[in-house]
Amino acid sequence: MVYIGMDVGGTGIQIGVVDEDGRILQKGAINTRIDLPVEEQIAQMAACALDTLRRSGHTLDDVAAIGAGVPGIVDPATNVVPFCTNLKWHHVPFADMLRRHIDKPVFVGNDATVAGLAESVAGISAGSHSSVFITLGTGVGGGIVLGGKVWSGFHGVGSELGHMILELDGEPCTCGNFGCLERYCSATAIIRMARELVERHPDSQIMKAVNSDPAKINAKIVFDAAREGDEIALKVFRRYIRYLSQAIANVINFLDPEMIVLGGGVSKAGSFLLDAVRAEVPKYLLYKTMPYSRIELAILGPDAGIIGAAMLGK
Amino acid sequence: MVYIGMDVGGTGIQIGVVDEDGRILQKGAINTRIDLPVEEQIAQMAACALDTLRRSGHTLDDVAAIGAGVPGIVDPATNVVPFCTNLKWHHVPFADMLRRHIDKPVFVGNDATVAGLAESVAGISAGSHSSVFITLGTGVGGGIVLGGKVWSGFHGVGSELGHMILELDGEPCTCGNFGCLERYCSATAIIRMARELVERHPDSQIMKAVNSDPAKINAKIVFDAAREGDEIALKVFRRYIRYLSQAIANVINFLDPEMIVLGGGVSKAGSFLLDAVRAEVPKYLLYKTMPYSRIELAILGPDAGIIGAAMLGK
Repeated sequence: MVYIGMDVGGTGIQIGVVDEDGRILQKGAINTRIDLPVEEQIAQMAACALDTLRRSGHTLDDVAAIGAGVPGIVDPATNVVPFCTNLKWHHVPFADMLRRHIDKPVFVGNDATVAGLAESVAGISAGSHSSVFITLGTGVGGGIVLGGKVWSGFHGVGSELGHMILELDGEPCTCGNFGCLERYCSATAIIRMARELVERHPDSQIMKAVNSDPAKINAKIVFDAAREGDEIALKVFRRYIRYLSQAIANVINFLDPEMIVLGGGVSKAGSFLLDAVRAEVPKYLLYKTMPYSRIELAILGPDAGIIGAAMLGK
Repeated sequence: MVYIGMDVGGTGIQIGVVDEDGRILQKGAINTRIDLPVEEQIAQMAACALDTLRRSGHTLDDVAAIGAGVPGIVDPATNVVPFCTNLKWHHVPFADMLRRHIDKPVFVGNDATVAGLAESVAGISAGSHSSVFITLGTGVGGGIVLGGKVWSGFHGVGSELGHMILELDGEPCTCGNFGCLERYCSATAIIRMARELVERHPDSQIMKAVNSDPAKINAKIVFDAAREGDEIALKVFRRYIRYLSQAIANVINFLDPEMIVLGGGVSKAGSFLLDAVRAEVPKYLLYKTMPYSRIELAILGPDAGIIGAAMLGK
């Protein structure tokens, strides 16, 4: 049997036919059209899925289930998407709508969660007892997989790691709260910290890399400068590692998964990031002499969205 | 079948014979003797268990399993207790040692965790899909129950809610870290906040209740004064509610259990505490229009330790 996975993003929708081991057999893609009524958008997704299936050499009889990862949350009881701001979806009965075009079991999950599931089926945490996937991007997302199954909580509002409070009355967050973890552990946080420091230290390597325009600073530029030994960039890097390590230690002290997997844009810093995090996390653990979660980088890259969505139905 | 539950505390050990529904049929108790070698302590526990069983009218043939809740952690793979500071236990193979006296399956769990399990079998969260139990005492403990089973993590070091960081570089904690949740959400935190304030406000009702001796302040005195409208006590109470609600919101945003159950000494404040927490928690949730965890008070009281320990083997 094969599975169809749909990675629904704000600008494009990637669709793949995936085998039982999480290998992508064929891919397709369409643009996200938030200008269209959601019914038409979903009709286009169904058409692309059927075309991709045909190109994979399979028929509908081979399809066990369809899964979609969306940048929002999902009611686990009904598979209705209550809201998905980037897609302008509000109370979309996604499963029912898609089944009008393709009569197969349909599953929906949060995008960070399905990326975590993908790593747990076909990636770095494959076969693990339990894992928490952390996407370090513009924001911070989380995906919890326990015993091979996605854990999104009883009401489907869980695994929002980025909005756990890490600093009482801390930095204001886009969500309206203060001190959310993602204000300290995202790429956005790296940029904010760097911009603050280069104001007082315009001689930093960071400023050279952006032709003295702080608006052009991104996380990669800061980490690259840190790797080259720039003191200001290193200061940002060390501070970031400290925040991220405290966040990871929180996950370990509370949930103690077998593995913690770091994904998202910031994780592309590779071993420079991973080695530093691994060295720092133990400082914040309650049980310092006991074994604890293995910390690894995600390995599936952008395909994780398709693979994880497909595996929702497995 | 019946189960034997052992609630192992720093001063006393409560032992009970418990039926399949979590009802205590018979109780016994011995003193904790940290002056004795652990083997002898465990021999005394076995003897008390057998005596309690006899008094319950059952025989060993009726016993399905024995469980013990200890103030420490347990290696889930071996049931060895790596350390249990209050009992002076270090690397105690508890299950093996107890089985030398009573040849039955033996299970061991953390005391806060087993109290949470008790509520999930025979208490307020009975039959729930998932729950997080929070003990608000001298420290803050946590117990995670998912699908009726205790979740202590892959390495057995999880559910240590009290040592998640809630405030970066915050109050120093007994564990060596800074800003741990229990520095803000325990009875100890209430006492600390009250002592700080009464220094500048010696006219507070709190000071009258302790004959102007701040060393005598406890959480109940502060909450009682708050209930009577004392402004200083209310200030401590509101601040405490805010901290506790942010901690509870963190649990919801991350794990989203069906229920959150509050136990421990502070929870004896009853609806005065519960109503305030229920009103405050929604402010810190990411999804403010979605259903979220029901928050309740524990109902089993001190018996939870025996019941939960017994139910470890169910």
